[in-house]
Amino acid sequence: MFDQRATERSSSTSPHLDRKRVYTSQYNAMVRAETLPGRVMVLDTTLRDGEQTPGVALSADDKVRIAQALDDMGVDVIEAGFPAASSGEQEAVRKIASSVSRSRVCGLARCNRKDIDVLLNCGLDYVHTFIATSDIHLKHKLKMDRSQVKARAIDSIEYAKSHGLTVEFSCEDATRTDLEFLKEMHVAVQGAGVDKINVPDTVGTISPPAMEYLIKELMTVTRVPISVHCHDDFGLAVANSIAAVRQGAQQVHVTVNGLGERAGNAALEETILALMAFFDVETSVDTRKIGPASKLVSRLTGYPIPGNKAIVGANAFAHESGIHVHGVLGDPSTYEAFGPELVGVQRNIVIGKHTGAHSVKEKLGEYGIDLTDEQVAQIVDKVKKLADSGKGVDDAELVALASHIVGQREAKNVRLKEFAVFTGINTTPTAVVSIEVNGEKKTGTSIGIGPVDAAINAIKSVMGNDISLEEYRLSAITGGSDSLCEVTVRVARCGGKKMMSIGKAVGTDIVQTSVDSTMEALDRLYCRKKEQ
Amino acid sequence: MFDQRATERSSSTSPHLDRKRVYTSQYNAMVRAETLPGRVMVLDTTLRDGEQTPGVALSADDKVRIAQALDDMGVDVIEAGFPAASSGEQEAVRKIASSVSRSRVCGLARCNRKDIDVLLNCGLDYVHTFIATSDIHLKHKLKMDRSQVKARAIDSIEYAKSHGLTVEFSCEDATRTDLEFLKEMHVAVQGAGVDKINVPDTVGTISPPAMEYLIKELMTVTRVPISVHCHDDFGLAVANSIAAVRQGAQQVHVTVNGLGERAGNAALEETILALMAFFDVETSVDTRKIGPASKLVSRLTGYPIPGNKAIVGANAFAHESGIHVHGVLGDPSTYEAFGPELVGVQRNIVIGKHTGAHSVKEKLGEYGIDLTDEQVAQIVDKVKKLADSGKGVDDAELVALASHIVGQREAKNVRLKEFAVFTGINTTPTAVVSIEVNGEKKTGTSIGIGPVDAAINAIKSVMGNDISLEEYRLSAITGGSDSLCEVTVRVARCGGKKMMSIGKAVGTDIVQTSVDSTMEALDRLYCRKKEQ
Repeated sequence: MFDQRATERSSSTSPHLDRKRVYTSQYNAMVRAETLPGRVMVLDTTLRDGEQTPGVALSADDKVRIAQALDDMGVDVIEAGFPAASSGEQEAVRKIASSVSRSRVCGLARCNRKDIDVLLNCGLDYVHTFIATSDIHLKHKLKMDRSQVKARAIDSIEYAKSHGLTVEFSCEDATRTDLEFLKEMHVAVQGAGVDKINVPDTVGTISPPAMEYLIKELMTVTRVPISVHCHDDFGLAVANSIAAVRQGAQQVHVTVNGLGERAGNAALEETILALMAFFDVETSVDTRKIGPASKLVSRLTGYPIPGNKAIVGANAFAHESGIHVHGVLGDPSTYEAFGPELVGVQRNIVIGKHTGAHSVKEKLGEYGIDLTDEQVAQIVDKVKKLADSGKGVDDAELVALASHIVGQREAKNVRLKEFAVFTGINTTPTAVVSIEVNGEKKTGTSIGIGPVDAAINAIKSVMGNDISLEEYRLSAITGGSDSLCEVTVRVARCGGKKMMSIGKAVGTDIVQTSVDSTMEALDRLYCRKKEQ
Repeated sequence: MFDQRATERSSSTSPHLDRKRVYTSQYNAMVRAETLPGRVMVLDTTLRDGEQTPGVALSADDKVRIAQALDDMGVDVIEAGFPAASSGEQEAVRKIASSVSRSRVCGLARCNRKDIDVLLNCGLDYVHTFIATSDIHLKHKLKMDRSQVKARAIDSIEYAKSHGLTVEFSCEDATRTDLEFLKEMHVAVQGAGVDKINVPDTVGTISPPAMEYLIKELMTVTRVPISVHCHDDFGLAVANSIAAVRQGAQQVHVTVNGLGERAGNAALEETILALMAFFDVETSVDTRKIGPASKLVSRLTGYPIPGNKAIVGANAFAHESGIHVHGVLGDPSTYEAFGPELVGVQRNIVIGKHTGAHSVKEKLGEYGIDLTDEQVAQIVDKVKKLADSGKGVDDAELVALASHIVGQREAKNVRLKEFAVFTGINTTPTAVVSIEVNGEKKTGTSIGIGPVDAAINAIKSVMGNDISLEEYRLSAITGGSDSLCEVTVRVARCGGKKMMSIGKAVGTDIVQTSVDSTMEALDRLYCRKKEQ
């Protein structure tokens, strides 16, 4: 009865989880359910439910890029969009269907023939159709009764099947739907020829043990694979997805970075890793591609990955406190369940108030600065004092502290003597600078596409063409036009061996602050140059 | 045996959860465990584990403010810090202990007398002491055997009890500790007089059913209240906390916004709401204070609340898609488990590609713009087209679209004729502008603390003192110094009835772009003024 094409990707195994290098709780093995499948299918809905995240809008080209990353990662099904929403959505879905090579591509449709026709016109062969079944939705949204809803579902599924579609069906708001009616719906849609039935926790209001209860009940009447679609309104989307799988669900709906309506959907990265690392459930996903895919989705949606996001957040493999860093440098398994390479991300040792000597030595080594134990102790002390006063310490500040303690920075090698910039209407932004380099004064001028750009170009014109600005980061401008801004720059010098340096400044004048940070980076660069 | 002071806050009830207005899955009630307590204690560790979030560093004053918010919210215990870490930490913990009136204040200490002495010196009467018990930690970090660890724990607890402290003890990495040894530890520390035993899932590697198994086993030998401390490395911190409570745990460790090491701890907001809304478990927390506390913690730690964070994220009660907005405007229970007022946050209707007519009419109404149905349809069409090309639509753009369609914006009422600004070293940033207001040209000049500030001050000097800049937002500057920036301003005019207007511009020159956005806002303001 179930369309085999929907599982075809699942024939490959996920090759990258070496059990011997995963350090999860041994208690997971003690509750392995008999109903647990050995493998689950992954339906990614980043491009449909994820794109419904308020404020997110992806162009057709962006969607194709994400779809290709998902295809490459190995998800079984990509839910590409809701074709009936707009003509632009149809065009995007069509493009995705023609540019994905291995994953199945499906589209969302309400239970009506028009939505299904639109979807067929996009060249899709897989539909995810849904209708709400809870009394709350029937009364307040659909204004229909149960028999009407059931008839609509049956008609739509029969219509879709008669057009050769693989059909996945959802009772929207299933977890708030009366159990007897939900079972009745499952039986009815199976009679209409459905291929898979998805159980959505639409408002994210079920608990994991209740999800187990519900899926167990539904399994008694359901002969096609059951899928589950969980929302994170109470932070339980991943737990509910796992709970459903424990009772026999064979597919999970997920999104990259947990995007989706309101608090979002079950995150792909968390759900898949938990299933693999806790219960040895296989998927066809190459986990090493998760980190890069997460970054791509974040960049294209403009939705940052929270620092403390599981698996893919900047802190997921970051360690700051002395106790943790000491442990991780001894053996990562002390504070990590698996190494970051398994999911294609990096480990990070962070310097801050909880920092110990181990971290400081390791981090400054990366910048080519070697210190005695006494110097390290002095730096740790200063870092803690700064942190106690509420000041974080980034790499730029740590290098500055170290340079100060090592005593290299007494004489300034590069000094700003003069600087002015002007801009206006019908005026090309223009800057002039005079810089003293090792006692010799040089003056240069340049234009730019804005006053900051002009100022930095003028500095570059003085310092020579082998200086390049590798990174320019402006932060903390908010509130009024008179608020503080913080500029961090990374400068490189390419003559012979490439050397890098960072500078940072804080001020109210964005142009002046940009110049100050660049001068600091240059001074540090020229200071190191003299030594060599 | 258990120190009653630790539960004293629990005598009040949480008065703000009206069961009749909470729409969670009915299946939760079907799995209510007999071992579930009617009430749990809340230990908030935002100031200890939360502050160990890489990059977070709070000053003593910031910590006191957060502690007061937690106290006011009603948490039972505030873990205020790790006194042995630094002298600054000791000072902060001391200040917190003396400025909190109702919550108990505890401090973290390793299992040694020195850490406990430092804590006593801070004036605390409650210690949370810990030592690792898993073989991984024993071998790679502590380099101790099981009997040494047990002896250390017993000695430290006896020492702490002899000094009159309430003692909560944790076997660090409990979820990866051998069950027989873990039970042996629980029995041993009870013999030493411990008041509460916490079970930390230190590396976040247990699943909810396994957590139930573990707690059930531990309950067979544990006579003092069991607490649980869960990390979110696989997105399961909240689920594991609930699982522990189902088996009889009487306390949860949580942090505001789920801050903490790596992927963070169980979020206070999610854990408490899930316990209340799913299982009727009471806490002493006033849920209406959760939203403001979340914002306070975000502001002081500099850690943004992710948009799709459950309960407190900007999208938790935001709706964009036509289907959802239509449902929510009909009855919020269709897509919300409870109203945002329960947790002190607001509902938000967002305009984007999934928007329908309901949302557009509602949103423009807020800006005093009334439209015919035909005009609304035109705007919805344009919003969808913009969104299909990957462009989000914020309030400023929506108002601009509406103004264009309504046809009010044909003639510019306020035009920029001349503009120039200069800044430099030893130079006060200075700007000059000429503006034509309804045909009359006016020129003004002003200084500022930066070129943007000078330019905006010059505009204000021309337009009169009743114009004020209410909001200035700069975004999307990253990459090189030649990247694009986007400026949004909100301007108000206070003469007589207060009127507001917003303007937005995108460009490479930050000064010019700021001027352009301000002029757009002023033009819109003067256009409306003429009508009235």
